[in-house]
Amino acid sequence: MLDYRIYRNCFSSAEMRMIWSEHATLSAWLKVEQTLARCQADLALIPSDAAAAVETVSISDLDIDALAAEMVLVGRPIVGLVKQLRALVGEHGCHVHHKATTQDIMDTAMVMQMNLGLTDIGTCTGQLIGLLDSHMRAHPSTMLIGRTNGQHAVPMQLTTKLAVWRSELVRRVEALEQAANRGLNVQVGGPVGDLRGYEDGSGERVKAAIAARLGLGVVAPHWQNARDGIADVVTALGALCATLCKIAHNVNLLSSSDIAEASEKPANGKGASSSMHHKRNQRASEFMEAVSRLGRQKAEQIGEFTLHEHERSGGAWIGEWVIIPEVFLLTSGALHWAQILFEGLTFHPQKMAERCDASVTAAAS
Amino acid sequence: MLDYRIYRNCFSSAEMRMIWSEHATLSAWLKVEQTLARCQADLALIPSDAAAAVETVSISDLDIDALAAEMVLVGRPIVGLVKQLRALVGEHGCHVHHKATTQDIMDTAMVMQMNLGLTDIGTCTGQLIGLLDSHMRAHPSTMLIGRTNGQHAVPMQLTTKLAVWRSELVRRVEALEQAANRGLNVQVGGPVGDLRGYEDGSGERVKAAIAARLGLGVVAPHWQNARDGIADVVTALGALCATLCKIAHNVNLLSSSDIAEASEKPANGKGASSSMHHKRNQRASEFMEAVSRLGRQKAEQIGEFTLHEHERSGGAWIGEWVIIPEVFLLTSGALHWAQILFEGLTFHPQKMAERCDASVTAAAS
Amino acid sequence: MLDYRIYRNCFSSAEMRMIWSEHATLSAWLKVEQTLARCQADLALIPSDAAAAVETVSISDLDIDALAAEMVLVGRPIVGLVKQLRALVGEHGCHVHHKATTQDIMDTAMVMQMNLGLTDIGTCTGQLIGLLDSHMRAHPSTMLIGRTNGQHAVPMQLTTKLAVWRSELVRRVEALEQAANRGLNVQVGGPVGDLRGYEDGSGERVKAAIAARLGLGVVAPHWQNARDGIADVVTALGALCATLCKIAHNVNLLSSSDIAEASEKPANGKGASSSMHHKRNQRASEFMEAVSRLGRQKAEQIGEFTLHEHERSGGAWIGEWVIIPEVFLLTSGALHWAQILFEGLTFHPQKMAERCDASVTAAAS
Amino acid sequence: MLDYRIYRNCFSSAEMRMIWSEHATLSAWLKVEQTLARCQADLALIPSDAAAAVETVSISDLDIDALAAEMVLVGRPIVGLVKQLRALVGEHGCHVHHKATTQDIMDTAMVMQMNLGLTDIGTCTGQLIGLLDSHMRAHPSTMLIGRTNGQHAVPMQLTTKLAVWRSELVRRVEALEQAANRGLNVQVGGPVGDLRGYEDGSGERVKAAIAARLGLGVVAPHWQNARDGIADVVTALGALCATLCKIAHNVNLLSSSDIAEASEKPANGKGASSSMHHKRNQRASEFMEAVSRLGRQKAEQIGEFTLHEHERSGGAWIGEWVIIPEVFLLTSGALHWAQILFEGLTFHPQKMAERCDASVTAAAS
Repeated sequence: MLDYRIYRNCFSSAEMRMIWSEHATLSAWLKVEQTLARCQADLALIPSDAAAAVETVSISDLDIDALAAEMVLVGRPIVGLVKQLRALVGEHGCHVHHKATTQDIMDTAMVMQMNLGLTDIGTCTGQLIGLLDSHMRAHPSTMLIGRTNGQHAVPMQLTTKLAVWRSELVRRVEALEQAANRGLNVQVGGPVGDLRGYEDGSGERVKAAIAARLGLGVVAPHWQNARDGIADVVTALGALCATLCKIAHNVNLLSSSDIAEASEKPANGKGASSSMHHKRNQRASEFMEAVSRLGRQKAEQIGEFTLHEHERSGGAWIGEWVIIPEVFLLTSGALHWAQILFEGLTFHPQKMAERCDASVTAAAS
Repeated sequence: MLDYRIYRNCFSSAEMRMIWSEHATLSAWLKVEQTLARCQADLALIPSDAAAAVETVSISDLDIDALAAEMVLVGRPIVGLVKQLRALVGEHGCHVHHKATTQDIMDTAMVMQMNLGLTDIGTCTGQLIGLLDSHMRAHPSTMLIGRTNGQHAVPMQLTTKLAVWRSELVRRVEALEQAANRGLNVQVGGPVGDLRGYEDGSGERVKAAIAARLGLGVVAPHWQNARDGIADVVTALGALCATLCKIAHNVNLLSSSDIAEASEKPANGKGASSSMHHKRNQRASEFMEAVSRLGRQKAEQIGEFTLHEHERSGGAWIGEWVIIPEVFLLTSGALHWAQILFEGLTFHPQKMAERCDASVTAAAS
Repeated sequence: MLDYRIYRNCFSSAEMRMIWSEHATLSAWLKVEQTLARCQADLALIPSDAAAAVETVSISDLDIDALAAEMVLVGRPIVGLVKQLRALVGEHGCHVHHKATTQDIMDTAMVMQMNLGLTDIGTCTGQLIGLLDSHMRAHPSTMLIGRTNGQHAVPMQLTTKLAVWRSELVRRVEALEQAANRGLNVQVGGPVGDLRGYEDGSGERVKAAIAARLGLGVVAPHWQNARDGIADVVTALGALCATLCKIAHNVNLLSSSDIAEASEKPANGKGASSSMHHKRNQRASEFMEAVSRLGRQKAEQIGEFTLHEHERSGGAWIGEWVIIPEVFLLTSGALHWAQILFEGLTFHPQKMAERCDASVTAAAS
Repeated sequence: MLDYRIYRNCFSSAEMRMIWSEHATLSAWLKVEQTLARCQADLALIPSDAAAAVETVSISDLDIDALAAEMVLVGRPIVGLVKQLRALVGEHGCHVHHKATTQDIMDTAMVMQMNLGLTDIGTCTGQLIGLLDSHMRAHPSTMLIGRTNGQHAVPMQLTTKLAVWRSELVRRVEALEQAANRGLNVQVGGPVGDLRGYEDGSGERVKAAIAARLGLGVVAPHWQNARDGIADVVTALGALCATLCKIAHNVNLLSSSDIAEASEKPANGKGASSSMHHKRNQRASEFMEAVSRLGRQKAEQIGEFTLHEHERSGGAWIGEWVIIPEVFLLTSGALHWAQILFEGLTFHPQKMAERCDASVTAAAS
């Protein structure tokens, strides 16, 4: 399981686990309530003192067990949070969660976390591209046999193989950025999403102010039952995972005993003896493959969960609470292994050359 | 099955079936061979007469049974096509399919068909958005009860519901365009994709010329084993299908006997008698839902098929031959039903108002 | 596409295409109407003459274009069929389709086709098991290197590898039989499935009689909105496809240039020259892999389509019309390739022995 | 996430979390090593004292941090476990893990956990069937309107609706039992699965003895790269989840404001006031739907992970470590909600009768 002590570093990065931890999730909810209050105060919809009072609350003031108990009772975590917040700010209690609904808080917080997660993934993917560049610089003219449909074809540049992987990663980054631009929006809408209850367009101003403060976008009218935007982000992560899986499996094949044109750095740091060469398992590529495949598959689940009924469907929405964090976690795990893999990967030009020579000889005979 | 005479109009549009027909596919292959020859002639790589000879061949000159027989023998359709082309152009035969490989022809042709398919889907989606606009104009102030988690919440504008659907469709169009920009590229690379065999960069010029003639993009080095770009397009179609499925199911719910706030135009054009109201099945929404769900699911299959090994994998590539046309067909079928649905859909403001009134009364009591 | 002349033999067997052809589907609907009438006549619920009249109708009496037109209008094919049947039997018309509903006819007919399809698949799987047995007999003591995680491990018997594949196929046959026992039932229930309208338990007797005549089972109360049984069959086919895909990919790997411990029979029947050995693509394993993967994936779609609402959901049911035939077709295609593959497959003991020797030498050094 | 304090009881049962906890997993590995030693001692393959020494080790003797560190280094958890075990039993160390491989231990342990999980799921499903029986007894003659394709059809017995759900659950239990019979086998095979290294068939006797002690089955030759059997179990759980999802969504629809023929017991135990009726969210059905859908989807992932290469594939196997526990957890969560739902569910015969009357009136007019 993803949270076992013995396994967790194999399936996700510590950074991503922190972004999606229970603590970070509660913090994000609190932050949204505070930002809502601040923006409403700035627009004179609630007293400035009330916003200030809400802003003084920290996550350590919350009773998590009480939140958990309330969650089981209500089926949503925000009612309990608001109850505690109101108690904590005393006389200002009536201004907490003003004109908001549970989904406003949870959706906006989740998008904040997605935003952080994407920054981390962008950084890691950039580093991976850098590692590929290093390998290309290290092998400007190394040739290996091209293999099509499992058969030796003709010799080709190793850089061409690496450049294709690089080009895929660059496209995946672009796709992620486009998806993020479309999908990372605040949710500020109230009970049925239409800012009902706000007067004179003040709802739109609150929404815009929250978006500005959190560095997120806005969409009109709302997206509480239109989950296509965040599904785009999840899907783009799945596509990145597919690329990582493809790369991992190919490195794994190249480092198989039967090909042996690449090899991972042994985990213990020592070179393996030639006599035991056949016993060296290629763990980074294998974990990278498995974890990225899990990520890609999980991303494929999101489509069915976009099928909301009417203005909101718990039976669809709840699924996101699991799928979205897990796709981020698995993607981070795959990228983590990718870094280990390419930092330690050695290509074997001599072995490659032997096959190219054999191929040329065969073709000439 | 999608091609039954009695069913086919229920699962795809006639236009899309034409784009992906066997005839159109063969034509596209022929067109790519002709464009290749023309561009190579323009660059003086083959005689201009040879290109002209290839251009005179039409699909009616081909022996389809012989192509089918060759396909079973070789496992790829282009060897047989080239054989026939060479026979047809006589002395120019040796210039046919010059420096090309089967995948160059099939990939480029498929992308041409995808391009046509996307144009059709863009048009149909635009018409659907127009129909939603009409309904919004027709109901500027109609209110209905908002429903969250299956329960009546508070009254809201019908236009808000429709505007959310519209916003999703607009985002889906944008996502499709971005995917098309990234994924619709020519494949011109030869045996292992690297333009090996061309001299002095002439391969890059041929590739650019073909792309320009066909109105497609280019990527470097190649994408013969990097299928992420076309997977993006398929995935974006799946996301459009998800949105269509969501809309369809919601209209179907609104037109259920228990809600009855909308109803489809009866297929026979007559109004249904009130006494038989309960027997009126809502076929357009139901088919639109089923067909779009099939489309969304099929699109989810593409990720696994991007996992090529080495420079090309038949075991992965062949899957695309089925998935890509079928996703386009099913998307066209869903859009076809969407048009029928919204052209004939009637909202019932009186029924909506009754529920809003009941809700206000309940809240006030 | 699955029905292209040039492709169809690559994706399904001719036998299976016949079972699921439009003609066979119409015949099955007709057969169910005839069986219904006969059983009702046997129980004196309709005149025996009426049943006899219905039984004289043959598919060549039907106007398919009229059926297609009616299908588009009504959204279901049986209303049009019944209309034609009634016209064809004249005075007996009122006894056609007595107390039945569209879904009764379509579900029962589909199960008849599934039954035929499973028989064919059972036969083909049995033949495949027989081919594996032949290879095991031919190689009683051949050793090859075992490969774990891509690395050479220790030598092992070739028969062990083949026996594992065989054991999987045997389990898949058992699973299919169990699923068929559970899922292949007649649907006889009327409008909401409960045999409403029949008196004194005569409905149950009609149902049992139809099941007996068609060699199918019965379930109580009905399964018109309980699709788990047929989903079991589809899922078991998907699991068979997964096994076939695994086997195919493994043979493909063994016959890759880098391993070369097996090779397919060249399609043209001639042995390939050693100099061109590297150009021989392994088409049967590659198509078997691609087609079985398509089958496995398609089978995974069925779960979502079991989610009916209330007593029947068109938006779910319609999906089966596509998925079920296609899973059968793709499974037949995968088995077709499996037969070609194993009929022509040659193992290369000498090559295997070289690797075993190298491994022993390496371990001893 | 599934392990958040505030969420975990919403996605899995405490019992199932215990079965798949890190502690239970380590215990199962230890138990397999102990059983292996005991059976080998019984067959005089290792000294009886050695087996006794291994049996004295308890999980509290293990250094989990060291296991975790070793896991990251080696990529498998058993090397570290064996190292600790050997240190703990001193002179008997050389008899620990005799002729075994990592996968033997992990596969057998996982099957033990699956076996426990299935017992729990069988019990919970039995309880759910009992609850449906109670509702049927409570409503022997209650009628409600049948709904097909969203439209009111004709009145039917409530018991028919419930009996269909019951029949599905009974079939799901049967399918699970058949899958368990086929899939729950020990793995005892050594490096490449063939019991190499044991003499005179003693390997087969050790395998049989371990199976007998653990109450599991055996298959020949082995299933280390033939994952179809455990995939069957996972798939059968997914099918149970599909049924639970169907039931949940249907109850949720029946308890929607627009139908209101059923309602869940309010979580706070008080009856809701009629004026606020519309605000009562139906949480049990909604969570049951979401969690079972997550379970069904996750089960669909297993097929792709059966595609092992050669004698073992880390890139496929590792995926099971995540998927299998999670499918069990999610199934337990869905069943947990099912129990809450049906224990507290109230049907409203009066409301049902009104609709039946209206339908009869409509049909008669």
